[in-house]
Amino acid sequence: MALLMDHQFVPLPESKEVATKTFLDSVSYIPPFFDCLGSKVFGPVKSDISGNITKIKAIYDSDPEKYGTLQDILMTEKVKYGAEWPKAGATLALMWLKRGLRFIQLMLQSLADGEKDENNPNLIRFNITKAYEQALKRYHGWLVQKIFKAALIAAPYKSDFLKALSKGEEVTEEDCLAQVRQFLVNFTATIDAIFEMFIALNAELDYSV
Amino acid sequence: MALLMDHQFVPLPESKEVATKTFLDSVSYIPPFFDCLGSKVFGPVKSDISGNITKIKAIYDSDPEKYGTLQDILMTEKVKYGAEWPKAGATLALMWLKRGLRFIQLMLQSLADGEKDENNPNLIRFNITKAYEQALKRYHGWLVQKIFKAALIAAPYKSDFLKALSKGEEVTEEDCLAQVRQFLVNFTATIDAIFEMFIALNAELDYSV
Ligand SMILES: CCCCCCCCCCCCC/C=C/[C@@H](O)[C@H](CO[C@@H]1O[C@H](CO)[C@H](O)[C@H](OS(=O)(=O)O)[C@H]1O)NC(=O)CCCCCCCCCCC
Ligand SMILES: CCCCCCCCCCCCC/C=C/[C@@H](O)[C@H](CO[C@@H]1O[C@H](CO)[C@H](O)[C@H](OS(=O)(=O)O)[C@H]1O)NC(=O)CCCCCCCCCCC
Repeated sequence: MALLMDHQFVPLPESKEVATKTFLDSVSYIPPFFDCLGSKVFGPVKSDISGNITKIKAIYDSDPEKYGTLQDILMTEKVKYGAEWPKAGATLALMWLKRGLRFIQLMLQSLADGEKDENNPNLIRFNITKAYEQALKRYHGWLVQKIFKAALIAAPYKSDFLKALSKGEEVTEEDCLAQVRQFLVNFTATIDAIFEMFIALNAELDYSV
Repeated sequence: MALLMDHQFVPLPESKEVATKTFLDSVSYIPPFFDCLGSKVFGPVKSDISGNITKIKAIYDSDPEKYGTLQDILMTEKVKYGAEWPKAGATLALMWLKRGLRFIQLMLQSLADGEKDENNPNLIRFNITKAYEQALKRYHGWLVQKIFKAALIAAPYKSDFLKALSKGEEVTEEDCLAQVRQFLVNFTATIDAIFEMFIALNAELDYSV
């Protein structure tokens, strides 16, 4: 799991505030995750997530001191955008980014927990569908849901997916999953903190696309 | 049809060589065409085409004299890329761009010719499907074909599509179609010339994605 393990998320401080710079650093290694899915049809998903990251980074770079934490961004934009907020700026980008991250987290967690379709133990459709239903489905209209279902068929075999995650390393499936579990610790805590922040600041929306 | 009519393609010279600069100018008004389809699901298609244009423009800008015509680009890249060519550089970008342009041309032509599904005269699925089958289907694997079928359902009504094409102008449907016919003259000639050039230079590939 060279791809992700070399770029672990950092532990959260007591305050649970997420530092923008380290968050952006860690998250910049996420888009290549979609290449592990092995088909170019996932390109648009990768672009969408990369776009979110670029948008947040642009705000951060405009004034690194002012936007030291993700919370700083939301609070500043709330004032800046008024009634348009939270459907604006880096707030909107983070609102969607966190959903994509949650999808990845839930999918990896499901794999790490050994959940599988007993009839097709080498498929990851089961894990992907479960993660999709919990993280994204309610934010997608029927058309995007339908496209998801079609795209699902392009998902790789579990063995190929784990091999891709371990790119450049010779590890057994069990070792790879142990690394996934290790990666999930800080990753999950960071995502949880961002979700809690959106609730606390009343920044969550539930329109669907 | 303000969108396209204000930016007609220029007539071809006798030599049928396409000048890169005017081509890039005219084609830069094409991606917004996909906004007329009225759904954000077409975003990835728009990005793909915009990406092609950006790639060709970057090569042109690197040396406007050297790359004065599209043919100059193909000939120069053929030497530059050797065995990798034509699946490389701006040649590859133009190979795909011309297919997207052909799709648009055939769809507009079919509308202008009054072709329709007699049972659903206000739907453009018929025209879109016909254009897709002729211009793109053979370059798409079964998965992308399936996604196309799903996405088709998001296509707008004919009346809404024509209204969107006429953005900012009050024109009747018949006037709009007359303008489409006018637009198609140079547009079609340019696309034909590019297709002929790809054949003549043996630059066409038929792999599917
Ligand atoms: C040839 C015929 C072609 C026909 C056309 C094809 C159509 C293809 C449609 C593809 C959909 C791609 C997925 C992208 C969906 C996106 O629409 C959503 C919302 O996207 C957000 O929208 C906001 C405005 O509302 C802002 O623009 C955000 O941008 S902002 O930064 O500007 O604020 C943006 O991220 N993102 C999402 O739903 C996020 C999705 C994340 C991860 C999903 C994982 C799924 C994995 C699947 C594995 C099997
Ligand atoms: C939440 C779950 C989400 C799940 C995932 C969603 C998946 C969505 C898949 C969407 C596919 C979008 C269409 C894009 C297709 C593209 O794959 C192809 C080939 O694209 C080319 O590929 C080359 C390498 O082979 C180079 O990279 C080219 O790039 S280069 O510039 O670098 O050389 C590039 O254009 N272009 C195409 O087929 C062109 C398509 C053009 C127009 C199509 C019109 C259709 C209109 C439809 C109306 C109903």
